[in-house]
Amino acid sequence: MDVEGSVIAMCKAARQAARALATASSDTKNRALTDAAARLRARCGHLLAMNRDDVARGKSSGLSSALLDRLMLTEARIDAMATGIEQVARLPDPIGETIAQWRRPNGLEIGQVRIPLGVVAVIYESRPNVTADAAALCLKAGNAVILKGGSEALATNTAIAGDLAAAITQAGLPSATVQIIPTADRTAVHTLLQQSQYVDVIIPRGGESLIRAITEESSIPVVQHYAGVCHTFVDEYADVAMAERICVNAKVQRPGVCNAMETMLVHEKVAPRFLPAISSRLREAGVVLRGCDRTRTLVPGIEPATEEDWRTEYLDLILAVKVVDSLSDAIDFINTYGTGHSDAIVTEHYNHARRFLSEVDSACVYVNASTRFTDGYEFGFGAEVGISTNRLHARGPMGLRELTTYKYVILGNGQIRE
Amino acid sequence: MDVEGSVIAMCKAARQAARALATASSDTKNRALTDAAARLRARCGHLLAMNRDDVARGKSSGLSSALLDRLMLTEARIDAMATGIEQVARLPDPIGETIAQWRRPNGLEIGQVRIPLGVVAVIYESRPNVTADAAALCLKAGNAVILKGGSEALATNTAIAGDLAAAITQAGLPSATVQIIPTADRTAVHTLLQQSQYVDVIIPRGGESLIRAITEESSIPVVQHYAGVCHTFVDEYADVAMAERICVNAKVQRPGVCNAMETMLVHEKVAPRFLPAISSRLREAGVVLRGCDRTRTLVPGIEPATEEDWRTEYLDLILAVKVVDSLSDAIDFINTYGTGHSDAIVTEHYNHARRFLSEVDSACVYVNASTRFTDGYEFGFGAEVGISTNRLHARGPMGLRELTTYKYVILGNGQIRE
Repeated sequence: MDVEGSVIAMCKAARQAARALATASSDTKNRALTDAAARLRARCGHLLAMNRDDVARGKSSGLSSALLDRLMLTEARIDAMATGIEQVARLPDPIGETIAQWRRPNGLEIGQVRIPLGVVAVIYESRPNVTADAAALCLKAGNAVILKGGSEALATNTAIAGDLAAAITQAGLPSATVQIIPTADRTAVHTLLQQSQYVDVIIPRGGESLIRAITEESSIPVVQHYAGVCHTFVDEYADVAMAERICVNAKVQRPGVCNAMETMLVHEKVAPRFLPAISSRLREAGVVLRGCDRTRTLVPGIEPATEEDWRTEYLDLILAVKVVDSLSDAIDFINTYGTGHSDAIVTEHYNHARRFLSEVDSACVYVNASTRFTDGYEFGFGAEVGISTNRLHARGPMGLRELTTYKYVILGNGQIRE
Repeated sequence: MDVEGSVIAMCKAARQAARALATASSDTKNRALTDAAARLRARCGHLLAMNRDDVARGKSSGLSSALLDRLMLTEARIDAMATGIEQVARLPDPIGETIAQWRRPNGLEIGQVRIPLGVVAVIYESRPNVTADAAALCLKAGNAVILKGGSEALATNTAIAGDLAAAITQAGLPSATVQIIPTADRTAVHTLLQQSQYVDVIIPRGGESLIRAITEESSIPVVQHYAGVCHTFVDEYADVAMAERICVNAKVQRPGVCNAMETMLVHEKVAPRFLPAISSRLREAGVVLRGCDRTRTLVPGIEPATEEDWRTEYLDLILAVKVVDSLSDAIDFINTYGTGHSDAIVTEHYNHARRFLSEVDSACVYVNASTRFTDGYEFGFGAEVGISTNRLHARGPMGLRELTTYKYVILGNGQIRE
């Protein structure tokens, strides 16, 4: 069969598998997950061998050392992968939950019941742990999954998916529960993105260019995770010591992630007290500042921030700083230049806090806390599928629940419509 | 400005308006709605005059009498439109509801709060009441709306939207809350469908070909409402008299709508008792039957049903009938040929009911009731935006709540991430 035909066949098989998975018990799904974790540990030697092949190919094709590090498996990384799957097994099963139930005047009882989304396709780049992670989350939520990893990790990903599939079959679930597209041929992804009759949602995990390209091409809904240009606004009424702790944490604790602060806004009334001190602390931590004119007057020796800076997700130890006239200006600035991801205000003023929470149009709005908490684990979801910047379906951190939909179950005793 | 430029300007204005609407109080929104209803009644003469122009143009361009009837306004229809808006004003406001709230071990309080979707575009065909209806629902849920009606109703729709906009401005809300695209130029819709930075969702209201064309072209998520090929399965353990009432109702009460029954499945053990009687009742009601071989043996003189029939949404007094061997066969048949809209079982058997509810993969699954109840009003939502056949975001009947999304509001007292 050609690539197109075999991808379509995989999608059809996934749809079939999804039917069986929708009614699989939590016990069965958890047994498959626990067994999968055990198999990964037991087959550590085989996985390392397959991974060595990928790494060797990557080296000879000139992959950067950062990418080689992401690609490389070790015994510890395989163990972490297995532990991750075991954690998913221990999470509560979202399927079957009655979201709401009510009785109509005519006696009909209507229940809104949580069910799996159906077939999920995950398209991702190098890191092979995504194979285990995405498959485990999809399976736990009763979905069939089609995986398309990076070509540089093909042997590793195929080996991981093979172990998962063995555990799944052993538990009595369909082998097409987890499938991996076994080719780097671009026709495969192109074909996959057109199978809207079999695939319910595409989840890309990777950089913004990957996500934009997939969204452009897909006829299936895509869960988007675009840039996080996150702000912290230090209000006139901020507790300055708290503002310092929060801003340092939001910028420095892990600068390369989407919920790190990229722009700091400071109310003009607090700027003379706040900016010099925070600037030295941030510089001590290795942060390069770029500021508006007023910032540069208060903190000499920093580069000017351009219009481009206000829109940039640095993912690095760089921070844009702007002094604003008022709370309203801060809100307008965030709604203009932000990406609707996570934004915080530091204030002791009740009404400023309320206005910020209400008027900033972002998935996560904070008062007096670091934006770094935007995360499925930190929110208490127990797992993270990703962070959605969509407004439809799921917004913000996605846990298992966001891999589900619902059906209405209507119980009658002969009702007809008049 | 050219068409493209002016549509983009409308979309930008809608995004601006959406910001203000998101924080508008229920009182303000309700005042705008009540006033809009009063204006439509007061300006009845003007609306009828504008409508006469549309009807005259429609006649001279050869519109069918059915379409002319849909297009035509009367005093009673204008009054019904106004009453509809008043009903929306009386519905509870979905915005601001706390969907869930919890406290994390570190003291962060996380609330999931319902907010408007943002900017909604509604693209619809002839019937001008959709202008008032869609605008009222979007406004109540705090969304800005861009309306694109059929070109044959342009004068009427523009007049209605003008009255709504006047009431909205009077209430202190932005005039761009409700905008209508004032041209039949196809460039307008094409441009609209590409404005994903300003428009959050497209809701098409019309036939399947309209929806498919829009989905094909749109870079914005589309709420789809595809065909409803709804089934009723009369189980071996059905109360036969109840099955008759339900099947007649599901087919005959209003055959031209998406939740009417199109295919009746009958268990072979009950078929000899059930089929002859129901067939005469349906034929008396004017229904034309098409059957499988076994049906035709039990009910002589009916046409054979083809593979094509099993997939057809007749929207007419035609019914496809099939005798099946078992509950499992009925479920497989529905999952194969159905459209995931609404399907019912008539049975007194506890476990058959449970299996049907669990295994039929449709938005609405019924036991012992007519599929005709799939409807926002019948579900108790108070209003209906449409019925979604999507799996993401909203599934089944959509009320005001389905025109919303959520944000996370996180309250801290200085938390930083370790």
